[in-house]
Amino acid sequence: MSNTIRVTVWNENRHEQTNEQVRRIYPEGIHHAIAVPLRQEQFEVRTATLDEPEHGLPEEVLNTTDVLIWWGHQAHDEVSDETVERVQKRVLEGMGLIVLHSGHFSKIFKKLMGTTCDLKWREANEKERLWVVNPAHPIVQGIDQYIELESEEMYGEFFDIPQPEELIFVSWFEGGEVFRSGCTYTRGRGKVFYFRPGHETYPTYYHPEILKVISNAVRWAAPVNGPSLVFGNAKPLEVIKNKVETVENK
Amino acid sequence: MSNTIRVTVWNENRHEQTNEQVRRIYPEGIHHAIAVPLRQEQFEVRTATLDEPEHGLPEEVLNTTDVLIWWGHQAHDEVSDETVERVQKRVLEGMGLIVLHSGHFSKIFKKLMGTTCDLKWREANEKERLWVVNPAHPIVQGIDQYIELESEEMYGEFFDIPQPEELIFVSWFEGGEVFRSGCTYTRGRGKVFYFRPGHETYPTYYHPEILKVISNAVRWAAPVNGPSLVFGNAKPLEVIKNKVETVENK
Amino acid sequence: MSNTIRVTVWNENRHEQTNEQVRRIYPEGIHHAIAVPLRQEQFEVRTATLDEPEHGLPEEVLNTTDVLIWWGHQAHDEVSDETVERVQKRVLEGMGLIVLHSGHFSKIFKKLMGTTCDLKWREANEKERLWVVNPAHPIVQGIDQYIELESEEMYGEFFDIPQPEELIFVSWFEGGEVFRSGCTYTRGRGKVFYFRPGHETYPTYYHPEILKVISNAVRWAAPVNGPSLVFGNAKPLEVIKNKVETVENK
Amino acid sequence: MSNTIRVTVWNENRHEQTNEQVRRIYPEGIHHAIAVPLRQEQFEVRTATLDEPEHGLPEEVLNTTDVLIWWGHQAHDEVSDETVERVQKRVLEGMGLIVLHSGHFSKIFKKLMGTTCDLKWREANEKERLWVVNPAHPIVQGIDQYIELESEEMYGEFFDIPQPEELIFVSWFEGGEVFRSGCTYTRGRGKVFYFRPGHETYPTYYHPEILKVISNAVRWAAPVNGPSLVFGNAKPLEVIKNKVETVENK
Repeated sequence: MSNTIRVTVWNENRHEQTNEQVRRIYPEGIHHAIAVPLRQEQFEVRTATLDEPEHGLPEEVLNTTDVLIWWGHQAHDEVSDETVERVQKRVLEGMGLIVLHSGHFSKIFKKLMGTTCDLKWREANEKERLWVVNPAHPIVQGIDQYIELESEEMYGEFFDIPQPEELIFVSWFEGGEVFRSGCTYTRGRGKVFYFRPGHETYPTYYHPEILKVISNAVRWAAPVNGPSLVFGNAKPLEVIKNKVETVENK
Repeated sequence: MSNTIRVTVWNENRHEQTNEQVRRIYPEGIHHAIAVPLRQEQFEVRTATLDEPEHGLPEEVLNTTDVLIWWGHQAHDEVSDETVERVQKRVLEGMGLIVLHSGHFSKIFKKLMGTTCDLKWREANEKERLWVVNPAHPIVQGIDQYIELESEEMYGEFFDIPQPEELIFVSWFEGGEVFRSGCTYTRGRGKVFYFRPGHETYPTYYHPEILKVISNAVRWAAPVNGPSLVFGNAKPLEVIKNKVETVENK
Repeated sequence: MSNTIRVTVWNENRHEQTNEQVRRIYPEGIHHAIAVPLRQEQFEVRTATLDEPEHGLPEEVLNTTDVLIWWGHQAHDEVSDETVERVQKRVLEGMGLIVLHSGHFSKIFKKLMGTTCDLKWREANEKERLWVVNPAHPIVQGIDQYIELESEEMYGEFFDIPQPEELIFVSWFEGGEVFRSGCTYTRGRGKVFYFRPGHETYPTYYHPEILKVISNAVRWAAPVNGPSLVFGNAKPLEVIKNKVETVENK
Repeated sequence: MSNTIRVTVWNENRHEQTNEQVRRIYPEGIHHAIAVPLRQEQFEVRTATLDEPEHGLPEEVLNTTDVLIWWGHQAHDEVSDETVERVQKRVLEGMGLIVLHSGHFSKIFKKLMGTTCDLKWREANEKERLWVVNPAHPIVQGIDQYIELESEEMYGEFFDIPQPEELIFVSWFEGGEVFRSGCTYTRGRGKVFYFRPGHETYPTYYHPEILKVISNAVRWAAPVNGPSLVFGNAKPLEVIKNKVETVENK
């Protein structure tokens, strides 16, 4: 059995078909731009997109995926509920999930968070600076004090998510807002990382430090061979003095 | 405008109809047993049950509820999805939610947690001892080092919930298990408290310290008049140097 | 016995003696500016300063203080270790502690955090905007989406503190930095709130929303009458089958 | 440069000199028992003990240590304050620290926690069962649902530590107590893991799952090459409109 981490990069892949500006930046799709550098690491990388059968995520793909990366934006509702439930089940079983940018509004992220995942936004080509607030975390391996992006969409607080278990990045925006832009969660045996940057009209997924964060996150989110989850009726491990009469006689 | 906290105690109220042992302990229902002592505090208390129209939780009730207490067990699936969504919406807007015992498997709790909320269990009349692990928390006001229950159903780890924001109680069980039995979360503007004890065949909701925890939790979970949540497209608060050309020329 | 919260506002009170600009803003000292509005709430408020005997914090003052507010800057080292230990002991017993601005470098805050509590700073009269990231928290009662301060000293990340238990505010600074500017912790039975704003050369402690946050924090940090802390050798609560021979025979 | 993790196992090594029972179990010292299996992993392992010069932890040793393991009990006070400060400094710079059992009362652990780190205890050869409550964590790689120790010293709540960032294990004790027995923290760039088991009169450090947890923890706690920590006066990254007059004219 190999130890290679198996990554599936999922992309909605719609803007690339309809928007000339996006196509120029990502001619083979955002999924391709993300997959190429991950292949240069020691990962085994596949891609999947919305318009493939079962959105490219049939059971056999999910069952052989260690970490799933998710980018979606305008067609969240077209992802079938069955697929979302299949992905959730796999996350709870241990598959890592990295949710990028507008994926904050995907069905799967909202389902795992239990909140609206809503936020403020603005498309104004403004500067973003992602400050590291957790320098001990493996996700910031090789990253400097901050990552600067000359032009990005703004996402601003309040970001309606549960309090992150670990807050890794906080973004500064030129227009006056801040954002918790790198957040980790565990759900069951699975790890979830939300990472903010990556609006489709900017070349964010060519930025070396953004790619470094994503590949660090893949390693961090890969499944751990911990205890299997056992639920349901359980025999006692110790002798219990029967106290049925206590209730009966009350 | 009054500052009285308005509590609604929701109970499935089915065991009480069909199980003689339960009826003897809670002749007017678990909701009644919980509501009576809360009325002796300064709360305004209503009850609601599954078989009432709209499960007793129409919009006008939820809109005038500050804290909702939830007990359910065998009929979780009979709670309509519309009701669950209405409750979730109100929690995110600020309504407190206290989920008791087998409510861990209610639709609303699972929806707010994003996990299966599954666990181990055993009905063996065994002793439970709830140890306080957060003595600074308002929920343990007036509580001693531990609460002892002579006979309870066992719930054991792994409890498939997101890591609690605050862990208040950890239970010891006679049969050899432990359980994170008092857990807090925030979801949007709302606070959620899960509290383990209260199997229907035991007189747990007459225990003075259990009632004390519930009334403390009501005060803790009552809505805070914090900022309203503003989402969506946002005008800049500061001047942004327009950088449209950066992208265009790439 | 009264339920009035007893607050002691501690101030180094040195800048006010030596810096004309500071004296003009706070002619009776920063402690006075903070104490006056707190007295208008239902708190019982005393002040204490560095140059008083025992720094104004003898045992009888601490023992009758529910919440201690701390402002210090240039003379942290002049606070005696005995005083710091007395304050720490009282916090662990339940006294609330609110540490303001440059108090991040006080002996007591560093002792309770276990880290350097170091940060970046700049005095450039720049704009600060404190965004609420936890709208459910009692500390933001009555506060809007953000608090704007026209001129403040900048504090920037990385702020070397343990990950806050609750992150309440994140600051945006005109010069390009962000800062976790409202952070809660529990230590023993005591609650700690760090709140960033309040450089001595700005009239920050006259700002109504800053004062509102401080008075909210006083209520939040007031001691809870939870279990007393019992440590040391403990008799078993259950019968233990003696297994001395297991070790002996190994 | 090698990627081998460099571990230093520190042991007080006093019980082994004076207590026949301990010597029989750990004839070459607890440090030796822990070091041997770690050497069989890919770690570079040294040991150090209290009675060596500078307690075996001079600057050159600490500077070449990636993860320090700490066992101490009866002679915590004999560890010099200089050594404690040196260790703390190295942790904040990135060195991992694993604190075992009675090390909860070591100077270094108390300094990093900011609390008394006190607890309940009992030596009664009783059964301990460590339940995994975070099955996604790398520290439980290869571990089953729980670890059972036939005979151990009891440690009971309330354990006076800051709320763990991640709670990994909760112990059940035969005598009726529970304990948060696997807890993680970050301090600066360093990671800290407290792991409860290991009283000197029991062969706990020969138990394969206990050793597995320790070696997992070494990997988890090893330094991450994240951003270096930059503190102090910082030049603005963006233009600040000078507002000196605002304050001057007040």
